[in-house]
Amino acid sequence: MCVWGAGGGCQRTGKGKWTHVCVRVSSCPRSTAEEAQSKKGLKKQQKEAEKAAKKAEKQAKLAAEQQGTEEDDFAKDQYGNSVMVQSQQKLDRELIRIQDLTPEKAGKLIWLRARVHTSRAKGKQCFLVLRQQQFNVQALVAVGDRASKQMVKFAANISKESIVDVEAVVKKVEQKIESCTQQDVEVHVEKIFVISQAEARLPLQLEDASRPEGEGDEDGRATVNQDTRLDNRVIDLRTTTSQAIFRLQSGVCMLFRETLTNKGFVEIQTPKIISAASEGGANVFTVSYFKTSAYLAQSPQLYKQMCICADFDKVFCVGPVFRAEDSNTHRHLTEFVGLDIEMAFNYHYHEVIDSITDTMVQIFKGLRDRFQTEIQMVNKQYPSEPFKFLEPTLRLEYTEGVAMLRQAGVEMGDEDDLSTPNEKLLGRLVKEKYDTDFYVLDKYPLSVRPFYTMPDPNNPKYSNSYDMFMRGEEILSGAQRIHDAQLLTERAVHHEIDLEKIKGYIDSFRFGAPPHGGGGIGLERVCMLYLGLHNIRQTSMFPRDPKRLTP
Amino acid sequence: MCVWGAGGGCQRTGKGKWTHVCVRVSSCPRSTAEEAQSKKGLKKQQKEAEKAAKKAEKQAKLAAEQQGTEEDDFAKDQYGNSVMVQSQQKLDRELIRIQDLTPEKAGKLIWLRARVHTSRAKGKQCFLVLRQQQFNVQALVAVGDRASKQMVKFAANISKESIVDVEAVVKKVEQKIESCTQQDVEVHVEKIFVISQAEARLPLQLEDASRPEGEGDEDGRATVNQDTRLDNRVIDLRTTTSQAIFRLQSGVCMLFRETLTNKGFVEIQTPKIISAASEGGANVFTVSYFKTSAYLAQSPQLYKQMCICADFDKVFCVGPVFRAEDSNTHRHLTEFVGLDIEMAFNYHYHEVIDSITDTMVQIFKGLRDRFQTEIQMVNKQYPSEPFKFLEPTLRLEYTEGVAMLRQAGVEMGDEDDLSTPNEKLLGRLVKEKYDTDFYVLDKYPLSVRPFYTMPDPNNPKYSNSYDMFMRGEEILSGAQRIHDAQLLTERAVHHEIDLEKIKGYIDSFRFGAPPHGGGGIGLERVCMLYLGLHNIRQTSMFPRDPKRLTP
Repeated sequence: MCVWGAGGGCQRTGKGKWTHVCVRVSSCPRSTAEEAQSKKGLKKQQKEAEKAAKKAEKQAKLAAEQQGTEEDDFAKDQYGNSVMVQSQQKLDRELIRIQDLTPEKAGKLIWLRARVHTSRAKGKQCFLVLRQQQFNVQALVAVGDRASKQMVKFAANISKESIVDVEAVVKKVEQKIESCTQQDVEVHVEKIFVISQAEARLPLQLEDASRPEGEGDEDGRATVNQDTRLDNRVIDLRTTTSQAIFRLQSGVCMLFRETLTNKGFVEIQTPKIISAASEGGANVFTVSYFKTSAYLAQSPQLYKQMCICADFDKVFCVGPVFRAEDSNTHRHLTEFVGLDIEMAFNYHYHEVIDSITDTMVQIFKGLRDRFQTEIQMVNKQYPSEPFKFLEPTLRLEYTEGVAMLRQAGVEMGDEDDLSTPNEKLLGRLVKEKYDTDFYVLDKYPLSVRPFYTMPDPNNPKYSNSYDMFMRGEEILSGAQRIHDAQLLTERAVHHEIDLEKIKGYIDSFRFGAPPHGGGGIGLERVCMLYLGLHNIRQTSMFPRDPKRLTP
Repeated sequence: MCVWGAGGGCQRTGKGKWTHVCVRVSSCPRSTAEEAQSKKGLKKQQKEAEKAAKKAEKQAKLAAEQQGTEEDDFAKDQYGNSVMVQSQQKLDRELIRIQDLTPEKAGKLIWLRARVHTSRAKGKQCFLVLRQQQFNVQALVAVGDRASKQMVKFAANISKESIVDVEAVVKKVEQKIESCTQQDVEVHVEKIFVISQAEARLPLQLEDASRPEGEGDEDGRATVNQDTRLDNRVIDLRTTTSQAIFRLQSGVCMLFRETLTNKGFVEIQTPKIISAASEGGANVFTVSYFKTSAYLAQSPQLYKQMCICADFDKVFCVGPVFRAEDSNTHRHLTEFVGLDIEMAFNYHYHEVIDSITDTMVQIFKGLRDRFQTEIQMVNKQYPSEPFKFLEPTLRLEYTEGVAMLRQAGVEMGDEDDLSTPNEKLLGRLVKEKYDTDFYVLDKYPLSVRPFYTMPDPNNPKYSNSYDMFMRGEEILSGAQRIHDAQLLTERAVHHEIDLEKIKGYIDSFRFGAPPHGGGGIGLERVCMLYLGLHNIRQTSMFPRDPKRLTP
């Protein structure tokens, strides 16, 4: 006999059937066993749990034997803790999706599996809200023909976030249920079994985590801070907002690849463990590699370019990039997802800019048209203006940007880099003047760009390089790259880079290389800025920063 | 005036136009400058190059002045080394793709940019084969109305793999040109400019690298060994075979995601830097992380499962996984691309197997139907039998596999793991009996699987786990996972895993977790085995193994 959990004495009876032994949830030993968390504590906890399990087993046996003498419960087979689903059998039972519960289903007897979102007992009735991802429906367990008072009590005691299987009749309701996504129906429960029981004490409440920004402060209601969310990400990710954010993120990747594949780009996979830090060795993580050491790639730059030199013509890749920067800001991560593009062009790097901006526009349009539900969901908790963009994309020269900033009172030299506040200010000025949240700033000063950036042919102080901005924050940095080994060597020497360390990189261009350019986009930034969010940790499922390595 | 290269005295004249100064390629200082490669040597080389460039500049000026007195060359503006493409202008000139050169284009004057694949001078003619990726066409430069003898000489001296812009007339040919992909036409060159010059001495020859397996040995012709290929990957990747392999690999990823997206899966991004090694700490790379240390993820296992606990229901991810195994075999890499799947199921983990096998079948069909050209190309160099699969996919139980092996004379215990030779043998036996190169082996002994594997409900010696095989080699390992914190703890204790280290993992299951399962597929193995190749380094663009970290 396999006793499965600390949650009570539920068990598999060995009859090869789903059977259920009812054990009151309030007797669950889990909720108090949480404190001991040291190694010793865990082992102790483990032993105790084993003891408890054995005890529960005995009790269950006893309960089974004494069943006949217990208070009569006509519904006793209609509820309880289910045995752990261990693939005992292939059940031919359809489980319905909550979003499909519409008035057309009224009168039907259905099964569904869902989480207990909230639960409220009220006399002889228990109202549950059952949730699947972003969808939820009201469920009623009421003493009557189909449910005993024991069953209602059982239902009322199911801990929030537990997963249950419910058999129920769909009923049309007269008054819309405002608090649920399924407003026109509720389900009347005839059977309810707990499939997976949540601990009674949750580290955070979903309703607190879902509260619109600012609302908590005003009403004195609880909100959940960023660290609590991240420490308990498995629960935080269940909120409607998180579900929407990461579905939209999945969409950004899909649209990025879809657009580029249609343009004839080939997807490549580039190594993350590299032998030398390509850009001089700052901000790079070191890895122990057998008897030597290696580094984590700060970008797929070198490998994308090698693919161009290897005739792949147009390539993209989606993968992690690593930055050992001790930056604790709202927009820096030590590991993020890079959406990288590199392509050969014919005559002018604006061909590359056009490809990238068109890709971004296709992403924006795809999100607007295919992920409107998700955008609305996020907006409910974090309101923001809809994202605006122009077609064709606005392209300004760096000098124009500097002129706009000077007109607004900023003092800066022609060749100074843009500070973060000035980037944001410029974003606001551009929005005012051109009504767009997305634009390209072209022809950066050569001195503020990496050594492999192609100088402007007409003005040696500038370069064929560009950044792209969303709501005033940089999301892409790119350029025409130097495709000539000799000029590349000159520029590396000028930047005082150890030529020996980048020999492999430079040698890639010795056997014929087409003119080419590209750029790298930060996925998390695109999602954050598109949605008008204010912290990149909201758009990274398991963010990494100098202070966070877990979960 | 910007002098761009060591390749000669070609230069931008400052007129803002494409102008060309012809310099004989044989005078290029690059081919001899290769030896000095130490840091000092490179700096010296750099200085020398600068000197040479200045000298060339002077000479070019002189040449321009003396032009009138030179031997008359009526075609002097029709050839030469082009200035480096630095985005000087947006040229309104269409470049044609070689694959579009068909007899319908006969008589047309076209521009194309391509590599010089081969070159053969023959009296007053020079035959070039011009290549774009896997496509090539014959080009003729012949002394006559349109080309001078100097121009033919220039063309004959262009080093192989250089990139050229050519203006030419398309001509239908009477006899098929067997050596080219465009067999019905050739192009008669009227202008030819070198866009990027390759060094004269290539580290490997494309024809050697493209020679069908075994052919070199028989004829005593050169072949290229794996290490030379990998050391010079930028050139090796230009072969038709490499182009086809990695286009097909791009296709595998696309089909994987396409299929799963259609099935309602959500793509997730999981962190690669993790705080604790999830499976006990063996074979894991260590990373310096600011003032502490961290690890590289051996799989996205924990994070996929957390997403299931966080209600994402069905997820997939494509990304690098890292294994610090000192295995120097044909099928092990220290970094490879994992195609990972995880999904909640209703009643039985065979629902998961069905989803995964269907995904694999969709990939096989997609490759067969959409990548037949690539398959044929690879087959020319590496012949193999077409990949066979059944619908529905064959699923055998482990005990059946063991029985087949025993019948074939293998001695092994019921709970022994399969050795690599036995896996391969079983693959051959299955192929003979069922005529399939793809099958599932289900219900592995519990003792040979990770601690988080769900035990078989009917036989505690076995488990709800499976491997999938292609041509007798494992490409996926998967299972129903334990979704109950208590049982998970028991199993971890049984495996003597430090509970403290996996606390975060176990805690993920304390707040309600649906039954779920999944698996991880090795992208490079799928490509290798689908194509019938014999070394995984052929299907990894920049492979990493214990001895290789470059390029």
